[in-house]
Amino acid sequence: MRRVAVIGVGVTKFGKHERSSAELFAEAAREAVLDAGIEPKAVQALYYGNVTGGESERQLHMGPLAASLLGLPTIPTTRFENACATSHAAFRHAVMEVGAGVSDVVLVGGAERILHVPTEHATEYFAYCSDAAFEQPTGLTFPGVFALIARAHMEKYGTTEEQMAHVAVKNHRHGVHNPKAQFRKEITTETVLKSAYVADPLKLFDCCPFTDGGAAVILASEEVARRHRLPVWVLASEAATDTMWLHDKRDLSRVTATERAAASAYRRAGRGPQDVDVVELHDCFTIAEIVATEGLGLFEPGMGGPAAEKGWTSIGGKIPVNPSGGLKSKGHPIGATGAAQIAEIVTQLRGDAGPRQVAGARTGLTHTLGGNTATVLVSLFGRD
Amino acid sequence: MRRVAVIGVGVTKFGKHERSSAELFAEAAREAVLDAGIEPKAVQALYYGNVTGGESERQLHMGPLAASLLGLPTIPTTRFENACATSHAAFRHAVMEVGAGVSDVVLVGGAERILHVPTEHATEYFAYCSDAAFEQPTGLTFPGVFALIARAHMEKYGTTEEQMAHVAVKNHRHGVHNPKAQFRKEITTETVLKSAYVADPLKLFDCCPFTDGGAAVILASEEVARRHRLPVWVLASEAATDTMWLHDKRDLSRVTATERAAASAYRRAGRGPQDVDVVELHDCFTIAEIVATEGLGLFEPGMGGPAAEKGWTSIGGKIPVNPSGGLKSKGHPIGATGAAQIAEIVTQLRGDAGPRQVAGARTGLTHTLGGNTATVLVSLFGRD
Repeated sequence: MRRVAVIGVGVTKFGKHERSSAELFAEAAREAVLDAGIEPKAVQALYYGNVTGGESERQLHMGPLAASLLGLPTIPTTRFENACATSHAAFRHAVMEVGAGVSDVVLVGGAERILHVPTEHATEYFAYCSDAAFEQPTGLTFPGVFALIARAHMEKYGTTEEQMAHVAVKNHRHGVHNPKAQFRKEITTETVLKSAYVADPLKLFDCCPFTDGGAAVILASEEVARRHRLPVWVLASEAATDTMWLHDKRDLSRVTATERAAASAYRRAGRGPQDVDVVELHDCFTIAEIVATEGLGLFEPGMGGPAAEKGWTSIGGKIPVNPSGGLKSKGHPIGATGAAQIAEIVTQLRGDAGPRQVAGARTGLTHTLGGNTATVLVSLFGRD
Repeated sequence: MRRVAVIGVGVTKFGKHERSSAELFAEAAREAVLDAGIEPKAVQALYYGNVTGGESERQLHMGPLAASLLGLPTIPTTRFENACATSHAAFRHAVMEVGAGVSDVVLVGGAERILHVPTEHATEYFAYCSDAAFEQPTGLTFPGVFALIARAHMEKYGTTEEQMAHVAVKNHRHGVHNPKAQFRKEITTETVLKSAYVADPLKLFDCCPFTDGGAAVILASEEVARRHRLPVWVLASEAATDTMWLHDKRDLSRVTATERAAASAYRRAGRGPQDVDVVELHDCFTIAEIVATEGLGLFEPGMGGPAAEKGWTSIGGKIPVNPSGGLKSKGHPIGATGAAQIAEIVTQLRGDAGPRQVAGARTGLTHTLGGNTATVLVSLFGRD
């Protein structure tokens, strides 16, 4: 494959919006096109991610809709859906299109709108990402899935609710400096520990919110990227899955799909976890961040909790995780999240992240998880 | 890109099923794996197409589900949705993965289950593929969309309801010889012309049915494909879109996305319409076949109707179209249709189509349309 670079990024404000998800994507895409400094008509294909549009907006077939809204109604476009890893999956396939030489400039991203539907419906639609035959009928929703994971991790490693709380506190502290974040407000461990239980041991402040928003990135071939002021190279973009069903997983304290996708990405990039300067990972719940830091090889198994407690994952710490504020503070529009994580890493590697900048970041990693830990994507990025 | 071949195909019986769409896909996939003569574990990635699973089965995130059902729970997998062109879009992206050298063996296809929901809900879910802001509120559903197209074609070219009826009669005649077809029964032009109007000028027998079913194909690199008894080469797989909105289309008698995708495919393959021996195209309504035969360059604009009437598109005619029976007789499980069309062309090019064989077929074409003619994919296939 040819080398592929990100030359433009765009993200809407995350939070509540009164526009359709395709319109939110279009806003992010216009920002990405401007950021790339290209003419809109240079875009040769659109990769579009969305999860619940059919349920929440009565809208399928969103690829041509987004393309039409952008004034690019004739380019090839495809909609991707891989639960919460949706736009990261779209990104990986878009990298293949540019890498294969099919196109030189591709627009990829996604959007979600969910805050206009009642919360119980939003919870139900999200639960469609777990199995309809065995899991949904038991009443299992995602807080329950991650509560089971948290319990397994606590039993095996002694991870504590306080350690989990530190993840939330850190991500809210980071998010204060992200103008696009849904919640820009510091919290304390007490805020988390005294919040109501959602699914024991997870409390309200262990959970990321429902969010509307869009995110987009522009991919380019090396030849096109060389004209950009600071291309960020895609060193690897890898995917792995695990069994769909929780009851078939051997050890709920691990996410083997993360381990597999990370191993593939490190191998392809010729880098290891020790080379990574900044990470955006999937903290849909605080325990998810702890398990991900272990699965990505940033810490030994069982050390994710202590690492959070000791501040190793803060900006200025050993390995800064989620400088954007993460899903917890920035918000989690599920179809947009993967692309938004990539936008943050690109911004960090360019040195453009302002007060949330990770000093000297040259290699970055994004990690996005979908469903009952059944889908994981890991990408690595570097600058010249 | 490297050369890519199809080495295995599988299709379920089309009709009503009492299994989930992911299970239907798994059945087709097992048939494709057997047909390819590979070990299941040789499959390195799964490309999965489905449209209405969230609405009709409360199931999103179907990629890992299908992979788990197939006993391949760790390979990368992505769900694609491009309205009725869904699994053809998945196919095109899978061709890129193999063409780029990322994988050597990829499983791609799709499935749909819809007959278990009330017809009015099925119609509604399908309508989500048109625009939620401008089109759905008017009550527009797909028979209405294609009725408008039929009227425009009739006005411009003098196309008649009888000519459209000939499309249905021909496809039913072909479908009699397809053991997987939903309807294996000949009809007459009188059957069509005397059936009830669904959306004037389209009558019941101008419309394809709702269908459950799955279809799968195995793609392989040239090195792997050379070990197969008769690889069928992917000469091109191209996509194009048109504006999402009917009100922005300049001429409803044409499908410009078909014209663009076909032009790209012919150019990439170095072939023209005169080189094509057999075609599977998207006859969701009889008028759609007429317009597609023109857009693909098989006949001059306005000659699609007369061609149908004169039998030019029958097996044994100038250019046989839909020897499988097409969507009209074989059925239209929307997430599976693109892959099922490809399976038919591969079967034809291998000379394995039995009583529906197009004699001497060496070059084949598939055409799949999504939404309000907003998405079209065209692929070309050839044998050594």
